[in-house]
Amino acid sequence: MLQGLPAADAVAAAAVHERAAQVLRPSGALAWLDELAEWVAGWHRTDRPKVERPAALIFAGDHGVAAAEAVSAYPTTVTAAMFEAYRQGRSTISAFARQAGASVDAVDVGIGRPTGDIRFEAALTPERFEEIVELAVAKVGRLDADLLVLGEMGIGNTTPAAALSAALAGGETAAWVGRGTGVDDAGLARKRAAVQQAVRRIAGITDPIEVLREVGGAELTAVAAATVAARRRSLPVVLDGYVVTSSVLPLVMAERTALDHCIVGHCSAEPGHRRLLDRLGKRPLLDLDMRLGEGSGAMAAVPLVAMACAGISEVPTFAEWFG
Amino acid sequence: MLQGLPAADAVAAAAVHERAAQVLRPSGALAWLDELAEWVAGWHRTDRPKVERPAALIFAGDHGVAAAEAVSAYPTTVTAAMFEAYRQGRSTISAFARQAGASVDAVDVGIGRPTGDIRFEAALTPERFEEIVELAVAKVGRLDADLLVLGEMGIGNTTPAAALSAALAGGETAAWVGRGTGVDDAGLARKRAAVQQAVRRIAGITDPIEVLREVGGAELTAVAAATVAARRRSLPVVLDGYVVTSSVLPLVMAERTALDHCIVGHCSAEPGHRRLLDRLGKRPLLDLDMRLGEGSGAMAAVPLVAMACAGISEVPTFAEWFG
Repeated sequence: MLQGLPAADAVAAAAVHERAAQVLRPSGALAWLDELAEWVAGWHRTDRPKVERPAALIFAGDHGVAAAEAVSAYPTTVTAAMFEAYRQGRSTISAFARQAGASVDAVDVGIGRPTGDIRFEAALTPERFEEIVELAVAKVGRLDADLLVLGEMGIGNTTPAAALSAALAGGETAAWVGRGTGVDDAGLARKRAAVQQAVRRIAGITDPIEVLREVGGAELTAVAAATVAARRRSLPVVLDGYVVTSSVLPLVMAERTALDHCIVGHCSAEPGHRRLLDRLGKRPLLDLDMRLGEGSGAMAAVPLVAMACAGISEVPTFAEWFG
Repeated sequence: MLQGLPAADAVAAAAVHERAAQVLRPSGALAWLDELAEWVAGWHRTDRPKVERPAALIFAGDHGVAAAEAVSAYPTTVTAAMFEAYRQGRSTISAFARQAGASVDAVDVGIGRPTGDIRFEAALTPERFEEIVELAVAKVGRLDADLLVLGEMGIGNTTPAAALSAALAGGETAAWVGRGTGVDDAGLARKRAAVQQAVRRIAGITDPIEVLREVGGAELTAVAAATVAARRRSLPVVLDGYVVTSSVLPLVMAERTALDHCIVGHCSAEPGHRRLLDRLGKRPLLDLDMRLGEGSGAMAAVPLVAMACAGISEVPTFAEWFG
């Protein structure tokens, strides 16, 4: 899955780095935004990066553990209802995307077809896992985009996200479990127990991709596969919150450079997210206490990436301006 | 200057607060963005806030202290050159504004007509002060906008910003003085000395608006006047970095509620800015280490405000969606 990943174009990135120091403003005045422009340039393989066609893929699926045990504040039927809202452009991510000039495609990878209950069995069979990977890869292949937002929706999916994080990043299992969409104290206790049970069940498994198949879920697998597919197309990715970040954790544990084409749009209020970002060494662009998922935090950061690129490509250097 | 400022529409804000809890997402999931939408609603006096016509006013002027003493990394002639770049849409703020769908108007309030050297004399005579206030008020009066970004440009203007902050907020004077566009160690020492001299000179003055006239400058005065003019039009304002924030400090010291219609777009890398924000009790939307001025950090935050409003006004409630 992770063999032969392309690297960024270091020459293009270096050209932008050099241009950033000469553009009509004090050198270093845009700090991190200049670094963002360099990063886009490296993956776009151009010294004049721009973001004109951002796109979001929102993967949605249902979870056996949520159907069997009340680990969420919402019933699993809400997944399908939200999916319909994405399709009709009525959701929060749709509204955000209109502001960012981005397209949104919601992809059903398992609504009404829940995964195995991760407490007792693998979330996905090898066949289902492959099927979802292929679907996600095909979706990315058909995109006409220059920046990709990955989002997810699936009632109960902070439970597999916590299981994945705990299994791969280690530490106190309970510390990876938050309230998600707002589960109550009893629900939080059930959620912790479910995560502990899932993590114990797979204690012998060391392959990070196998861990994803065992305790992840359909949309988590799709996010991981789409991330790899974007890399193969040299398409930069903006990651969203806790569920998305935990979905790509197996990639970076299998291959150290696997997330070099990804930035993190925001830090979620879900407590495990900041821990994951520390682990990945990635700083979120935004820190607004959001905890929605559906790619919303990543989409909120898209205009910053577009501005960073415009700040390099649309502004003359001192020499061009005065020369 | 600050008599009879209008208050926000509490009913409209409350209606948005209520709607935020019912919109098709977990209650509280957008956290701060929902509060932003409430804030816009209060000033727009509507329960369906939106940002469709953001506008930036960039005030530019020259400073006697910068002409007489090398307190900046750049010569004062750069103010005029940058102003021309704004007018031709070639600057960083122009590039950012295109991404945010905002207009930019650069306003000359004193280029080539430097203020008094604040070490020895008032920056502005009462007549010049009034003239600049009237110009700024007239500019705001002619805007067709629903969100206002205020920016500034003026070589050397972090020196008056530091003098204003030190004189009004107190504390160690040197702590308010940073490197601005990147002055060297010797320049920083000159800058500190200039600020100390200016602050000592006006030690007897207690009226915050008089302090602005004494140690501020043309564009700082224009920013303060525009902020008040926006308030009279019930137009919400996004403040930029250190210079803009110090410009409006006199307002809030003269009238506690004077900045209720203002949010802070970003926290600048100029060290005094975070201190000022703590003093004002305002949290910046972005924290990206930028230190450019010209309204760029505020403009970078505009899409977030637009998204916050769209997240309320374009997304149905659970009842509307399922009903």
